[in-house]
Amino acid sequence: MTALRHADGYATSAHYDGSGRIRHDAGGRSLTVDATFSLRAEVRLVDRVFDPATPDLAEVYAPAGRCVALVDATVDRLHGDALRAYFAEHGIPLAVEVFRALEEDKTLDTVCRMAAFLGSDGCDVARGEPVLVVGGGVLTDTAGLACALLNRRTPYVMIGTSIVSAIDAGPSPRTCVNGTLMKNALGAYHPPVLTLVDRALFRTLAPEHLRHGVAEIVKMAAVDDEVLFGLLQRHGRALLATRFATTGDDPELAAVADEVLFRSLYAYMRHEGTNMFETRQDRPHAYGHTWSTKFEPVAGLLHGHAVAVEMAFTATLATLVGWLDEDGRDALLALCRDLGLAVHHPVIEDLALMRAAQETVRRKRGGSALWVVAPRDGLGRCDYLAEVEDSLLAEAVGRHRARCSGFPGGGGGSDMYLRDARWA
Amino acid sequence: MTALRHADGYATSAHYDGSGRIRHDAGGRSLTVDATFSLRAEVRLVDRVFDPATPDLAEVYAPAGRCVALVDATVDRLHGDALRAYFAEHGIPLAVEVFRALEEDKTLDTVCRMAAFLGSDGCDVARGEPVLVVGGGVLTDTAGLACALLNRRTPYVMIGTSIVSAIDAGPSPRTCVNGTLMKNALGAYHPPVLTLVDRALFRTLAPEHLRHGVAEIVKMAAVDDEVLFGLLQRHGRALLATRFATTGDDPELAAVADEVLFRSLYAYMRHEGTNMFETRQDRPHAYGHTWSTKFEPVAGLLHGHAVAVEMAFTATLATLVGWLDEDGRDALLALCRDLGLAVHHPVIEDLALMRAAQETVRRKRGGSALWVVAPRDGLGRCDYLAEVEDSLLAEAVGRHRARCSGFPGGGGGSDMYLRDARWA
Repeated sequence: MTALRHADGYATSAHYDGSGRIRHDAGGRSLTVDATFSLRAEVRLVDRVFDPATPDLAEVYAPAGRCVALVDATVDRLHGDALRAYFAEHGIPLAVEVFRALEEDKTLDTVCRMAAFLGSDGCDVARGEPVLVVGGGVLTDTAGLACALLNRRTPYVMIGTSIVSAIDAGPSPRTCVNGTLMKNALGAYHPPVLTLVDRALFRTLAPEHLRHGVAEIVKMAAVDDEVLFGLLQRHGRALLATRFATTGDDPELAAVADEVLFRSLYAYMRHEGTNMFETRQDRPHAYGHTWSTKFEPVAGLLHGHAVAVEMAFTATLATLVGWLDEDGRDALLALCRDLGLAVHHPVIEDLALMRAAQETVRRKRGGSALWVVAPRDGLGRCDYLAEVEDSLLAEAVGRHRARCSGFPGGGGGSDMYLRDARWA
Repeated sequence: MTALRHADGYATSAHYDGSGRIRHDAGGRSLTVDATFSLRAEVRLVDRVFDPATPDLAEVYAPAGRCVALVDATVDRLHGDALRAYFAEHGIPLAVEVFRALEEDKTLDTVCRMAAFLGSDGCDVARGEPVLVVGGGVLTDTAGLACALLNRRTPYVMIGTSIVSAIDAGPSPRTCVNGTLMKNALGAYHPPVLTLVDRALFRTLAPEHLRHGVAEIVKMAAVDDEVLFGLLQRHGRALLATRFATTGDDPELAAVADEVLFRSLYAYMRHEGTNMFETRQDRPHAYGHTWSTKFEPVAGLLHGHAVAVEMAFTATLATLVGWLDEDGRDALLALCRDLGLAVHHPVIEDLALMRAAQETVRRKRGGSALWVVAPRDGLGRCDYLAEVEDSLLAEAVGRHRARCSGFPGGGGGSDMYLRDARWA
């Protein structure tokens, strides 16, 4: 979390910088400003972040003189004592507010309550003071947005406690709440200044939540990192069984777990972080996130299984357009099935639904085209299909169903349905 | 509103650009991203923006194929027919939603309702489509924030209908709503991509609203543009009397009105626009906006009168620290009084209140110092007082009271009190 350099004492925050220039026309009727904003964000693997011997949190909050934290209610039950003991041990005052973080809590009302806590008289966070956020995907979305809005931009440190919030939604700049008609409709680009990733926190995750979170790691492997893909092929099942080497005592597997997490983070941030304000559509990490935006809620799938179904389907589509050979497609299917992730679901045979998803996503992606991410020239690389015509869509759906028809359960995954909205 | 250049077809919007780079440590435990966002914003004087012969709006919305607009309820009564006739004449479909815009409407609930309209099925604005916003200060704050949040950033075109929304809050990137405990506590930096300034809209403003809006022009003159200061000395009263040359028929005064507006806009955007994300505190346009944040609501003053009282008081303070001679201070007092703006109010003699304001503003300005803006080396230039100690504050308050004691009403302004929250 190295501060950006400022030329003088007028910086409003150590974490952000900006510049601009102005010009006007000869007639004195029009002026134009070009303005730039810049930030630095760090992502760091740590071992046992709440162990008092681990310096990372104290290094941020001892100089600040206190720590103001927003914590997920479930996480508070599991890790709240350790969090409080850490700051007590370091003699750093800590103010914690606990928030329920179900999908139904992704509202501006939640964001308001968070902002009221951060901005209240007892706990008035200044615009340069980093808030601590500890939780899963819903909390990072809402607390990140509360920090984005407070003082028009307040930095925060993120500790993701689920796979997705640790390696995807956590370091992501895309904070949000649901709109009345569309999921994630309202938000801001506001990444944490520091993301601490501690796989010790994964020890308490339920197996089905661990599994569907791993789909996002498979995603980054399939489109950006073939070495990561190989690691998942060799060690994926063991990582699931040991909750990323947090049960048992296998130092080699622990090293693999760290490498898998870091490679996934690096692949993700190589694209997400260098396109931090989503000014470009060529986003490999959108693989699996086109049609699933519509069929995931319709089928009631856990997010990771929906993403896996679309990844597998898109791999079949990629074989039809000559981007991927069948061996590549089958390697992806085999890895997903090995990890218990779904590779097919009958919901994708609803072509009207699939086309409706394309319409929505095309608008969301700026209207110029659909930009479907698909592997190209082997796994670990990708390209973008500007459009998927109706005939190609129908053919790909038929081919994919045929390919998966021999799998047990037609290619369904383990525990793939949402039981409650808790980890959606 | 020239689009930024993009190297390829993947841009999510023509209005914004971004870049970034990533690096990681040798141990594979930490990665750092440096990311940049950039935008271009234009401000343009126009004559009779809703006259079908004026091309500016059609040039934006004919290519877009439609116009989706958020309009202030009062403005809709006064100018709604002209707005609708303009788009009908140009054959451009128009969807208007009208919002009440009182101070009490500066809430996230208003923002939600705006976003629901913009994002609804009939009117689903894509992330690259510029929304049209027409109204005063409250509407630009709330509608600007709705656009900031929708799709995480949606461009908008601003037509400010009050002096303040035309030359200050309108082109400003600082959108906001009030928090539960603090005014303007929540918001985002999100300037319009295009601000159209049409003084013909000032013809319907009440004289007291015109007057207190002009305080923000006096502000830019006093700290940044001595030519503008001279124009106000010579023509300020005539501009007030003719509502910026919109009544009567005086082409020379009309030219002066345009020059005053453009100089004010240029001075404002030269600082606000080149510090678009408020990453620096050296902001001349914060002149008059330190102590007034507390005493304006306590005294129930119209914003412009509160700003004028603080400007005058700070000029006296500047004489005490040797930054301004008494002639400079008296020229500022004379101009304010000539325009009917307050130069003193007993509320500033409450030193506890004044010190409380300093505490709040110091935190808001990042905690490093107070950074009070004051004229230095004559009017039209300024510098920043890092702190104002209690003894200096008390001495300046006493001196300023004494200086103003001979003025009628002790230096009060015309119609200086808020009668309702409408234009606060």
